[in-house]
Amino acid sequence: MNKITYLDNAATTSLDPAVLEAMVPYMTINYGNPSSSYSIGRQSRMAVESARKQVADLLGAKATNIYFTSGGTESNNTAITSAVRDLGCTHIITSPTEHHAVLHSVEHQCNCAGVTSSYVKLLPLGAVDFSDLEAQLADKAALGVKCLVSLMHANNEIGTLLDINRASEICNRYGAIFHSDCVQTIGHYPINLAASGVHFASASGHKFHGPKGTGILYVSDGINFSPLIYGGGQERRKRAGTENVHGIIGFAKALSMAMDNQAEEEKYIRSLNNHMRAALSAMSPEITFNSTETSLYTVLSVNFPSIKDSELLLTFLDQMSVCASGGSACSTGDEQGSHVIAAIGKKIGCATIRFSFSRMTKEEDVDFAVKAISNILELFGNAEVTAG
Amino acid sequence: MNKITYLDNAATTSLDPAVLEAMVPYMTINYGNPSSSYSIGRQSRMAVESARKQVADLLGAKATNIYFTSGGTESNNTAITSAVRDLGCTHIITSPTEHHAVLHSVEHQCNCAGVTSSYVKLLPLGAVDFSDLEAQLADKAALGVKCLVSLMHANNEIGTLLDINRASEICNRYGAIFHSDCVQTIGHYPINLAASGVHFASASGHKFHGPKGTGILYVSDGINFSPLIYGGGQERRKRAGTENVHGIIGFAKALSMAMDNQAEEEKYIRSLNNHMRAALSAMSPEITFNSTETSLYTVLSVNFPSIKDSELLLTFLDQMSVCASGGSACSTGDEQGSHVIAAIGKKIGCATIRFSFSRMTKEEDVDFAVKAISNILELFGNAEVTAG
Repeated sequence: MNKITYLDNAATTSLDPAVLEAMVPYMTINYGNPSSSYSIGRQSRMAVESARKQVADLLGAKATNIYFTSGGTESNNTAITSAVRDLGCTHIITSPTEHHAVLHSVEHQCNCAGVTSSYVKLLPLGAVDFSDLEAQLADKAALGVKCLVSLMHANNEIGTLLDINRASEICNRYGAIFHSDCVQTIGHYPINLAASGVHFASASGHKFHGPKGTGILYVSDGINFSPLIYGGGQERRKRAGTENVHGIIGFAKALSMAMDNQAEEEKYIRSLNNHMRAALSAMSPEITFNSTETSLYTVLSVNFPSIKDSELLLTFLDQMSVCASGGSACSTGDEQGSHVIAAIGKKIGCATIRFSFSRMTKEEDVDFAVKAISNILELFGNAEVTAG
Repeated sequence: MNKITYLDNAATTSLDPAVLEAMVPYMTINYGNPSSSYSIGRQSRMAVESARKQVADLLGAKATNIYFTSGGTESNNTAITSAVRDLGCTHIITSPTEHHAVLHSVEHQCNCAGVTSSYVKLLPLGAVDFSDLEAQLADKAALGVKCLVSLMHANNEIGTLLDINRASEICNRYGAIFHSDCVQTIGHYPINLAASGVHFASASGHKFHGPKGTGILYVSDGINFSPLIYGGGQERRKRAGTENVHGIIGFAKALSMAMDNQAEEEKYIRSLNNHMRAALSAMSPEITFNSTETSLYTVLSVNFPSIKDSELLLTFLDQMSVCASGGSACSTGDEQGSHVIAAIGKKIGCATIRFSFSRMTKEEDVDFAVKAISNILELFGNAEVTAG
């Protein structure tokens, strides 16, 4: 197999060997069920609770605000379901550029729980129009309608960032519940969840070199929610099911490692992102970007107008073992293409590719990808290339 | 730390080292997101689909009947929610000895979806009274009410087995949907799910030396259900969220190992169970059992009338590093004590302990536990021992 040039860290990241090392004891000798009262059960319980405290400390929260789940998608579903079922929200304001884990969960609430929903207006590159958000909330508040606002902290495809403190402030002013899908930012930014004013926030371990299958839901003080998954009394009766102990340990270790050197790693990743942007800009004036220098620093979303089809470009990149994506990984195979690219009004018939970086990305990876792109563009320039 | 004598394999089992070995590549080099279209994504996709086929083959099902979940609890919740929401069931028949993952999920449907529920009558030791099941189904069918029947294959605390083929046959006769929580039996019995006639069945990897955090939901042909967790198109659009790839690989490997030598291991575990039963019977005529030789062979539920409180006896056992449980692990800390023991009409004020075995249990473990029990009973016989 060729050496892999992995530039799709927003889809998933490799597990850090040190995270695996932390997990292994909980997959070998420390196998007790945390709900069991004997020694090896209590050890598992202590490990889970210690992980919870560590995660809470890293995110400016208390241990009692953190619930372990099977991932960001479950966390998003739990928050949205709970806001409707338990907190009296009958209207949901979200954005067309949210992850499907939010959009389809909102759609489900509209279909099954009879709530209504609307999209907030977007500015260029998908930034939330706060004046529209405020106007919508004011209208609903005047009618006595309680709202849930669900807006992601950073868009997973193009990297547009939300000022969550400002969004929280507006939501709180109108008595709305605010949920933020923070799957692309927790582990990548210093975030103080309590100070942010958000009511619900979701994160996923495999986006920052932690294990797949483990996430968290942050729930602020005073929010009384009930489970999505019922059963045993785990997670303080809010999320039933035997805890994925090794996953939880891995999540906490990965978050701890991500935050230990966050500032330096951000600087390094920004340099890779800027390096690739500069190299692609130099390659052709036609190449444009859907992310700016103020967007999520791990993502570079690039438009290649000379190539009609993202899939075709990705296929060529794959042949050179360069891993990147069109839409998010979760929408691969959707025939419609990216809903995010469509929502920000980009014209159809132009390849848009997301490159995304992590602390494990090397400059030579970026250089290799740039060279590969250059070769492909040259090929496209010289001959009519089609998917067949 | 003293050597652990682990006799609580119905709560959880240790991960088999060979299972861990199978999982490790998917926590190191094969980290691709199965939804990504490039090489390392496709490898993960192939691994997940190959695991699904392997699991299906081992359970007499097709790959399209198997959905990977975060565990047995999520599987139970998905089945029960779907039967009510998608399949038109408006009455649920279950039993008071079900796991809380079923009971609390049913309760939630009654509270939120406006369905009704009833318990089937139980015979001694919690066996289902099939004539009562049939009478209830006939009554409801006459009223045009579609029922969901949720009955576990084996009780997790006392080991009472259900004839699922017979239960399926009765349910199908009255047009009812039949869900069976098979968490204690899949991996321990040869089971042909398609032939059984069950519509939904749940299993959990960590009950047969697989990883925590991974389970399956079996859904029979022709049952059109919708997700509990919405988002990306994973699991053929029935369970959103990036797949826990290493967990799925571990589940399939553990099930494969469990079924490879199932008959011999059953014989071995039965011999341990019988050995402990005989030794305890010989110790005192007062000691009685809630499981028979036709019950789930991995469990021995024992009543110790000379000791008032299960917790007290468990504390003494824990001091000798013997791991066993009162109720299920999931109900530890519930002040009411075991709902199963209460449901089968055992008198309060008598310690009831579940010992449970696996292929990794040694005869010397059983002998050590028997000796420990003997010492504790002697102590109780000679002095008034209280929790204080």
